[in-house]
Amino acid sequence: MYSTYDVIVVGAGHAGCEAASAAATMGSSVLLITMNMQTIAQMSCNPAMGGVAKGQIVREVDALGGLSGIISDKSMIQFRMLNRSKGPAMWSPRCQSDRNLFAWEWRKALEENKNIDFWQDTVTEVIVKDGRTAGVKTSLGVEFSAKAVVLTNGTFLNGKMFIGEKVFGGGRTAERSATGLTEQLVSLGFESGRMKTGTPPRVDGRSLNYARMEEQLGDENPGKFSYTNTPSLTKQRSCWITYTNQAVHDELKTGFEKSPMFTGRIKGLGPRYCPSVEDKINRFADKDRHQIFVEPEGWDTVEVYVNGFSTSLPETVQYNALRKIEGFENVRMFRPGYAVEYDFFPPTQLKPTLETQLVRNLFFAGQINGTTGYEEAACQGLMAGINAHRNVNEEAEFTIKRSEAYIGVLIDDLITKGTEEPYRMFTSRAEYRTLLRQDNADLRLTEKGYAIGLASQERYDTMQTKRNGITKLTEAIRATKVKPDDINGWLESKGSAQLREKSSFYTLLKRPEIDQDDVKKLLKMLPDIPAYGVGEEVIEQTVIEIKYEDYLNREKQNADKLDKWESLSINPTFDYDKLKALSFEGKEKLKRLRPATIGQASRISGVSPSDVSILLVYMGR
Amino acid sequence: MYSTYDVIVVGAGHAGCEAASAAATMGSSVLLITMNMQTIAQMSCNPAMGGVAKGQIVREVDALGGLSGIISDKSMIQFRMLNRSKGPAMWSPRCQSDRNLFAWEWRKALEENKNIDFWQDTVTEVIVKDGRTAGVKTSLGVEFSAKAVVLTNGTFLNGKMFIGEKVFGGGRTAERSATGLTEQLVSLGFESGRMKTGTPPRVDGRSLNYARMEEQLGDENPGKFSYTNTPSLTKQRSCWITYTNQAVHDELKTGFEKSPMFTGRIKGLGPRYCPSVEDKINRFADKDRHQIFVEPEGWDTVEVYVNGFSTSLPETVQYNALRKIEGFENVRMFRPGYAVEYDFFPPTQLKPTLETQLVRNLFFAGQINGTTGYEEAACQGLMAGINAHRNVNEEAEFTIKRSEAYIGVLIDDLITKGTEEPYRMFTSRAEYRTLLRQDNADLRLTEKGYAIGLASQERYDTMQTKRNGITKLTEAIRATKVKPDDINGWLESKGSAQLREKSSFYTLLKRPEIDQDDVKKLLKMLPDIPAYGVGEEVIEQTVIEIKYEDYLNREKQNADKLDKWESLSINPTFDYDKLKALSFEGKEKLKRLRPATIGQASRISGVSPSDVSILLVYMGR
Repeated sequence: MYSTYDVIVVGAGHAGCEAASAAATMGSSVLLITMNMQTIAQMSCNPAMGGVAKGQIVREVDALGGLSGIISDKSMIQFRMLNRSKGPAMWSPRCQSDRNLFAWEWRKALEENKNIDFWQDTVTEVIVKDGRTAGVKTSLGVEFSAKAVVLTNGTFLNGKMFIGEKVFGGGRTAERSATGLTEQLVSLGFESGRMKTGTPPRVDGRSLNYARMEEQLGDENPGKFSYTNTPSLTKQRSCWITYTNQAVHDELKTGFEKSPMFTGRIKGLGPRYCPSVEDKINRFADKDRHQIFVEPEGWDTVEVYVNGFSTSLPETVQYNALRKIEGFENVRMFRPGYAVEYDFFPPTQLKPTLETQLVRNLFFAGQINGTTGYEEAACQGLMAGINAHRNVNEEAEFTIKRSEAYIGVLIDDLITKGTEEPYRMFTSRAEYRTLLRQDNADLRLTEKGYAIGLASQERYDTMQTKRNGITKLTEAIRATKVKPDDINGWLESKGSAQLREKSSFYTLLKRPEIDQDDVKKLLKMLPDIPAYGVGEEVIEQTVIEIKYEDYLNREKQNADKLDKWESLSINPTFDYDKLKALSFEGKEKLKRLRPATIGQASRISGVSPSDVSILLVYMGR
Repeated sequence: MYSTYDVIVVGAGHAGCEAASAAATMGSSVLLITMNMQTIAQMSCNPAMGGVAKGQIVREVDALGGLSGIISDKSMIQFRMLNRSKGPAMWSPRCQSDRNLFAWEWRKALEENKNIDFWQDTVTEVIVKDGRTAGVKTSLGVEFSAKAVVLTNGTFLNGKMFIGEKVFGGGRTAERSATGLTEQLVSLGFESGRMKTGTPPRVDGRSLNYARMEEQLGDENPGKFSYTNTPSLTKQRSCWITYTNQAVHDELKTGFEKSPMFTGRIKGLGPRYCPSVEDKINRFADKDRHQIFVEPEGWDTVEVYVNGFSTSLPETVQYNALRKIEGFENVRMFRPGYAVEYDFFPPTQLKPTLETQLVRNLFFAGQINGTTGYEEAACQGLMAGINAHRNVNEEAEFTIKRSEAYIGVLIDDLITKGTEEPYRMFTSRAEYRTLLRQDNADLRLTEKGYAIGLASQERYDTMQTKRNGITKLTEAIRATKVKPDDINGWLESKGSAQLREKSSFYTLLKRPEIDQDDVKKLLKMLPDIPAYGVGEEVIEQTVIEIKYEDYLNREKQNADKLDKWESLSINPTFDYDKLKALSFEGKEKLKRLRPATIGQASRISGVSPSDVSILLVYMGR
């Protein structure tokens, strides 16, 4: 009855929006099917983008030509570069978002893409003919034809919400769940499982006493996610920090016997690194407090997100416990937190393109693959959208290596290791994390995005200008000799050793006490350095490459060695408890699964590359 | 567990928002309970406020101190004063709204009211003790205490949506329905019924050919709803007009055998004056086309509302029929239209305050009372909110007479006549419609709103300034004699008879060829008229009062006579078909119910005051 599309994308969350945008931008005709056009790109959990490792992913999505970075920039109310005090591999952009604005900017961006059509409905069946997808059927009984289908169903597949002893069908509060699709996919031969995630109560900001909390300001010079010319913030809203305490924990414990998690009514595993507050006080009984981030939901709303207080305890317990938090003495809740359990499909059933092994041209992206997080979903959507388009056009697979991007790490982890619990990205999951920095995502990826017709010419030109600037600036710095007279006064003021003779500027920059701001000053002081496009980003990049040159090289060698150690065997009775430096999760998994080799250990979900390094160090390598 | 409130308002549509705002502004502590805080003040149907009789209601709500006018002004994308060519009783303000902005402005306004708390949940029970309401219970099992409760459940009570042969539970697309509450109210002794309404498909504006439609521009000098200093529009978006045709009708007819309405699967009666397109072509088989208004959904979205094409036929039929409309040849649908059937409570169970007769301090407002329309809902919410507050404070009932406002007409109609089908306001429902104009709602009502503590001092002062200006301007006009030499030149240019001697300016103004713009010019020409606050509104009002003086007086006499004719008997075999001027609905009802007296006839739902006048004329009175 309706048009035939190149690509149908099911679901309009972070994954679905990126998938639709990518395929359509590359030239596919796309139909985006969502259960509710009013909730396109709803942030179901906290109103924020980025964070450690996740911020890098947003930058990577942006560098490839995805929209999450641009949309985040347009809708942010606060920006912070996390981990500034650590090495640049750890620098991670994070923003607080205006929930409504974020959703609306996505919707506008999608509407502006003439290749995207919309349909509001629930997909109940993927049409498969001769091992290939041919379209979808919906709950209205409509059939849409397509050459490729991307499923991004989030937490909606047989979604069940839990608050205390109560259970409601639904993928998100006040929204219905999607039934039928899992069963159909299982009948096609797919394996499915259950996972669980949760969300904290939302509270009334007017009822909080901010004087009793720590203010968390945005950065003085706020950065942004996109490498394009999106505007920077000129004003920001603050977040606030407070803590749970023993009284809060005692109150929460009164609800444990009604907890859907502790009583086993929720079967799916939840995200270990984004645990509910009851899980935290249960698992870390020795900690007498946990941090709570009090996050505004937008520019002009009093609604507040209580980050760190995810819970599915009975709402009275939630309320009474909240009231014992400092600053929350008179809190009024808007709605209680809840847990949601949903179907996922173990991602080991996927190819590196996120196409399913079972059905040609059928792709899965986002939480349906067992991941958690907006950023993790967005990058999968992007990759699925790209590959759906390329499949339709009989072009080669588009994949990214672990050494090229967190996106590569994420997808490789998913398809080779699978995941038993909601998969979240960490810098420790990446062997090459010093290479996968937020500052160089454009240099790593924009050329690739441009080559496939996703990143625009303008984006590509901007990256090339930056790259040329870095090359020329690096050459100039290498060529420059600094005279003691020109610099000793300044070095003294920095408490840095004086020069005795004309020295290499390049070597001087490696001194740890000389930071990026200093380099900026030095570039002005030293007339021998020409002003080769020495913009902020060029200087940052050049300084990082020079200062960490040795470290970066060492990391690459380590990675090469890792490959060799693949078959190194581990004693089956090895006492992992001796290794204090192992991650909590890694140790638990190693003790349970007892891998025979380092290679096997390295592929266990939850055993990080750092854990593997620690094992290697202990084993004398 | 939680605070006790003065007033709990259940539902956050037009009725609930006005109720919460009114009670809270007057000083009550209010809890607003909504199933979804993301959908507060959602316009479920078309993105527009006002229209004939409805625009007057918005002005009345505003004059009393309600917020619908202010919110409409802040979110409108087009404004038109309808019926400018008719008498001022028919002038009706109407705006096209930005759907998202309207909802967001309401939410902001509610959040800014410190007396309003929010809770997201579904109410399943009204707690009643000793014949009084004491609060509510929710689906989460939470109990909230309150002295008064206002129910504004809209179409959510046991809501069921129909598209062709398919049925879905839900009060609005992709949202769940509310179950349990109807059953509980019935167990308390309330009588309930079913009603039906519908909505058209939403389509992609990018797929329409506007060159084949008529453009409908906003007014050159756009007005607004609120008497406060809200800004006027400086730019506007156009609507478009097109028509159905025989091919469209033929296509629609192919779906009749699957229509949930024609096959009797929908039991509830729908709104006669907002019929589905299938109803129109069925009932008015002789009409070869029906008008379609193509309405944009906001400033920056491509979504379009197809006003006039409400339907619950199968979505393929909807689609095929749409494509045969001029300008819609390549239309893409975003979602099909649907019908929704829901529970209502016959409003004859209410007092004039909208309190139920059965349970003290329990109020019903909006669609739950069998009405249709945002404006009808808003004014009921306002009145219920005011009276809930006043009950709690043991203050006297606040009611408005039929001769004072459409609001009075609406509530009197509901509680005395009840309604069998969704009740919509028309100017013909008002006996005193020449008095109930959009231009004088402030003069009629602001003093009342101010007296009860709802309309602000500023609003009251503005109204008084206007009132004084009118009085002084009218006096000045009465006192002015115009010399032939001063005006004959101008009169000649207007084609109006010349003056022979010094004449009354007052009498001159009654000439029909002299309109409001002329009066403005004359006031400048005639030096004897002092500039008593002669703002636009003062002049408009003064001119209307002078020009229509005789007519207004006659109308009042007619109304007095109507009272006397109450007991006049009608022949039981009277042939109503003879009276061509009777309304279609009025005739149908009179033939079926055969009232014994004019008084009885006048109280039948669907028999309008104009119908009664026609009967009286025929009977020689």
